[in-house]
Amino acid sequence: VAGVHAPADADPADIAWKALAANISDLVAMAATPRAYLLSVVWPKTGPDGLAERLVQGLSEAQQAFACRLVGGDTTRADAPLTLSITAIGETPGGVTPRRANARVGDVLVLVNTVGDAFLGLQLWRGELDGLDPPARARVRQAFLRPRPPVAIIQILRRLANAAIDVSDGLLADAGHIAAASHLGAVIDLADIPASAAGAAWIAAAADPVAARLALASGGDDYQIVAAMPRRNTQPFIKECAALGHTAQIIGEITQGEGLAVRFNGAVIETGPRGFTHF
Amino acid sequence: VAGVHAPADADPADIAWKALAANISDLVAMAATPRAYLLSVVWPKTGPDGLAERLVQGLSEAQQAFACRLVGGDTTRADAPLTLSITAIGETPGGVTPRRANARVGDVLVLVNTVGDAFLGLQLWRGELDGLDPPARARVRQAFLRPRPPVAIIQILRRLANAAIDVSDGLLADAGHIAAASHLGAVIDLADIPASAAGAAWIAAAADPVAARLALASGGDDYQIVAAMPRRNTQPFIKECAALGHTAQIIGEITQGEGLAVRFNGAVIETGPRGFTHF
Repeated sequence: VAGVHAPADADPADIAWKALAANISDLVAMAATPRAYLLSVVWPKTGPDGLAERLVQGLSEAQQAFACRLVGGDTTRADAPLTLSITAIGETPGGVTPRRANARVGDVLVLVNTVGDAFLGLQLWRGELDGLDPPARARVRQAFLRPRPPVAIIQILRRLANAAIDVSDGLLADAGHIAAASHLGAVIDLADIPASAAGAAWIAAAADPVAARLALASGGDDYQIVAAMPRRNTQPFIKECAALGHTAQIIGEITQGEGLAVRFNGAVIETGPRGFTHF
Repeated sequence: VAGVHAPADADPADIAWKALAANISDLVAMAATPRAYLLSVVWPKTGPDGLAERLVQGLSEAQQAFACRLVGGDTTRADAPLTLSITAIGETPGGVTPRRANARVGDVLVLVNTVGDAFLGLQLWRGELDGLDPPARARVRQAFLRPRPPVAIIQILRRLANAAIDVSDGLLADAGHIAAASHLGAVIDLADIPASAAGAAWIAAAADPVAARLALASGGDDYQIVAAMPRRNTQPFIKECAALGHTAQIIGEITQGEGLAVRFNGAVIETGPRGFTHF
């Protein structure tokens, strides 16, 4: 919904890309290879010039990036913001898929790529981001408007992960979803969460670096993956991801108990409400 | 979209029923047995009391009527009308399905049940319907608010029809969609289109009975089925539908050429734009 999930004044090509990317991201988290999608559109009664053309352009670019195609849907016009509803269809050979509820005690939590750039991109969009150089600003803007779920690692996830989730609500919230669904606890150390170059620069310039790390770990919309897997699988996982151009790093583990414990260099951090809640 | 596809002030239970029914109707037209559906909801920022409870109530009743269950979706809140986007999933054993584009010259057009009651129900909702008795008014109101696509005939359709479509835009428009998709023409005689008891009473009271028949054949939202099938299949089709409590009647045929010719007792009728267009 323009104005809720993406800025109302964003390029419709970016809104369309993000809508498809967010759905592809759910497929990646299920280790499902994207095949097709259905799209329902509510067109606003008054929209910017070239709305339909820009929307089609963004979809077309996203389809190509994520190797899936439009097979159906619906369309209408209403006195409403631009609204896109997508059902993405993927394939899991043999039905093998990591599930949120399938993490085991002792599983290691691994983050694919980095999180926080989308959060910085949102701050930039709002005019509230200081101190990054122009290339870093361009990168976080792109992370926010054109997220790229790591479709290349789907088969690695399918083979090596017990549980996985995409980071849409925020890394800490989403890791907590795995723990809760598995009726277990988890611990994550902020010092182990990798930052992008932009994120690292932002942390370095922050008055409170721990609060800055917490903000990056709580921001949503990155559409990267956090997975729980047996410790013996982590090195193959990291190595195979690297061979496809994706970094992966151990950030914590699944524990007995319940809830997510957040630490910084081993010391317990008190955290407030974490991540995006839908209402 | 409340206010577009259903009255904005309708009971949310009816809006939910209609949204699912309209999707189930598409499955019936493909002779696909309903299995499951995904639902995305945009909740309005301000809605009537009990909106969620009424919506769930209507969905629950529709799920039971159509034998399918909710398996996923998404939800958000926005400054927008109540918006429901449904992807319904059905099964076509062996992939056998009547397709719009599969009608053949000489195929007979058969209508399952009657059309026009939803149109009368819409007139009633708008306060523009005169002259029906209270039971007939209750029936057309129900046809408009709680359409019942004929799920019982799915297997008959699969076995006997070459092409099928559900009547959502209006019988004449939808029959025209079959002809157009099949690169053929069609002829329908208004005198052959069955009316419900309410429809018959409305025609009988109309100043221009042919215009009245045309209106019933052009109104949308009935979610009944029109199918094209070889002439030899029509009697088995009609008989098997009757055994399941659904009437079926020959209303026309597929011809060489293009476009839909509308007749009344054999005489050509000039018709204006027919049916609901999406913009």
